[in-house]
Amino acid sequence: MMKIRLMTAFVAFRQACCLAVMLGFVILLPTLAQAVEDPLPSWNDTGAKKAILTFVARVTAAGSPDFVPADQRIAAFDNDGTLWVEQPLYVQLFFALDRVKQLAPQHPEWKSQEPFASLLRGDVKAALAGGEPAIEQIVVTTHTGMTTEDFDRIVRGWIAKAKNPKTGHLYTEMVYQPMLELLAYLRASGFKTFIVSGGGIEFMRPWTERVFGIPPEQVIGSSVKTVFEMRDAIPTLRRLPEINFIDDKSGKPVGIQQYIGRRPIAAFGNSDGDLEMLQWTTAGQGVRLALIVHHTDAVREWAYDRNSSIGRLDKALDEARVKGWTILDMKHDWKIIYPFEKR
Amino acid sequence: MMKIRLMTAFVAFRQACCLAVMLGFVILLPTLAQAVEDPLPSWNDTGAKKAILTFVARVTAAGSPDFVPADQRIAAFDNDGTLWVEQPLYVQLFFALDRVKQLAPQHPEWKSQEPFASLLRGDVKAALAGGEPAIEQIVVTTHTGMTTEDFDRIVRGWIAKAKNPKTGHLYTEMVYQPMLELLAYLRASGFKTFIVSGGGIEFMRPWTERVFGIPPEQVIGSSVKTVFEMRDAIPTLRRLPEINFIDDKSGKPVGIQQYIGRRPIAAFGNSDGDLEMLQWTTAGQGVRLALIVHHTDAVREWAYDRNSSIGRLDKALDEARVKGWTILDMKHDWKIIYPFEKR
Repeated sequence: MMKIRLMTAFVAFRQACCLAVMLGFVILLPTLAQAVEDPLPSWNDTGAKKAILTFVARVTAAGSPDFVPADQRIAAFDNDGTLWVEQPLYVQLFFALDRVKQLAPQHPEWKSQEPFASLLRGDVKAALAGGEPAIEQIVVTTHTGMTTEDFDRIVRGWIAKAKNPKTGHLYTEMVYQPMLELLAYLRASGFKTFIVSGGGIEFMRPWTERVFGIPPEQVIGSSVKTVFEMRDAIPTLRRLPEINFIDDKSGKPVGIQQYIGRRPIAAFGNSDGDLEMLQWTTAGQGVRLALIVHHTDAVREWAYDRNSSIGRLDKALDEARVKGWTILDMKHDWKIIYPFEKR
Repeated sequence: MMKIRLMTAFVAFRQACCLAVMLGFVILLPTLAQAVEDPLPSWNDTGAKKAILTFVARVTAAGSPDFVPADQRIAAFDNDGTLWVEQPLYVQLFFALDRVKQLAPQHPEWKSQEPFASLLRGDVKAALAGGEPAIEQIVVTTHTGMTTEDFDRIVRGWIAKAKNPKTGHLYTEMVYQPMLELLAYLRASGFKTFIVSGGGIEFMRPWTERVFGIPPEQVIGSSVKTVFEMRDAIPTLRRLPEINFIDDKSGKPVGIQQYIGRRPIAAFGNSDGDLEMLQWTTAGQGVRLALIVHHTDAVREWAYDRNSSIGRLDKALDEARVKGWTILDMKHDWKIIYPFEKR
């Protein structure tokens, strides 16, 4: 009797075991299915997608001569025109223009002072005729003086509501769905993804984690100086009206070294401002991926390159062709452009 | 016959299942054992250890009012005197002195030029009598002019062999075993660990990942300016003889904002150079941990605080007492100091 009970108990135990293993399979199956799913569903099966898949396969295959340890899988992405729309003007410039309007009542002198006078008359073109010094003046005036926490709050408030004047969509909706997939695919393949943008670092950090999955500490950009001060015994950081660093052109490799401290193995850009970053990335030892987003889709997005004042792509396009970098043709290589097209 | 075969197959399958589950347990068991193991075995069960364990439990307990999402669990560590020994002189200063000797044949003028003349006579005290300007001159002269890659190679070569003159141990062996355990424990608890040091960022990055498990992109320190240049069509970054940023005192919160972009919830230091970082960290909303390593062990390490020229701890000690920050007493709170004591 005792023996029978023991055997019954043993059979019950084995059945429990089977159940456990079967449950294991049920849990595992979706994971296996995901593994064979296309990681880049919004990309057509053209050259750009193939170049990305081949590159990732080579650097992640253990035992391959091209294998790169996960901690060295650094990928650098430009932001404006590479991860989100930069037309008809850089988003940060729209932010600055809105700030000018908001601050104007406290600055009566702006009515007769350029570039503010033109801006307040609604003539953006005339305001920006002053070139980079005019832009720097607008940015410094509208982006500094407050604490870092106040600036964070101002950006969050603005980006939650501001919309692209041409499409009426929130700026954070006008990000590129194929690039969101690429970011996720690289991270799933052990990469650490960084933004390396000419834009303001503190203008991007409040929303990059939510929109791109890139946390503040992996955002590199241009910055103003800040100073630590006690205000009523409360420690604060105040933003000073002085440029600290311009993360553009030859500043991009400098910013990469300063913030990351090692060379990316993959870099993604769309303009001449990204040329030095792509040069620096591809000059490293081993397999590298350099990709340029070429804006070729006048219908779904914008078509521009050599003659554009925003995101001019001229020298970098020539160099990409000479060096065999991947040139992404937005019109032909992407099935959809924006996440809202999926709906 | 067929039925018997089927049943035999079924029994075999169930046995295989059992084996699989049992193997699962064998693999799981050590993990379960680790979970109940002491994460800080080199710490005595005194106040400092209790403060750390309590803090981590509070911020990681889901549903707790003090819960902090993993992406916001930022911990900042000073390096010299907090993670490794800073006596009898900062390690980087020993590096600079060795570089002066090495470069001296190319600089005959140093024989009559301070602070180099004193250094070359072996009189470090006289050389450093010039204070910070003298130190800056030594550092700039010995740390700049080369490319970032060459400097990386120089540091790696030196740190692999250089030894503390008092103990004869490699500098990288004179790290604090209890702090290695703390770093690992915080990371296992979802924290991202950063170094925030007054030392040179590029002096630390070549070895912090190997020694502390902290990758280059999580190292913040003082820096010189660099410039991007083409040398024979090869992109390089050259280190210029000009200070870019001093990551000390009020520079620490500035560096934290610049590099991390959000406020740490825990900070660890040992000197007045860390005061502003601890103020900035504890001024944030929610539970915070501020810890000061007090060097109280003249036998196993060094005992120094208010009157030390290296790592002076005076104002920060007073403020720690007033504000109830955790003051770690090295002599009483740590069972062992160095990893080699475990052997």
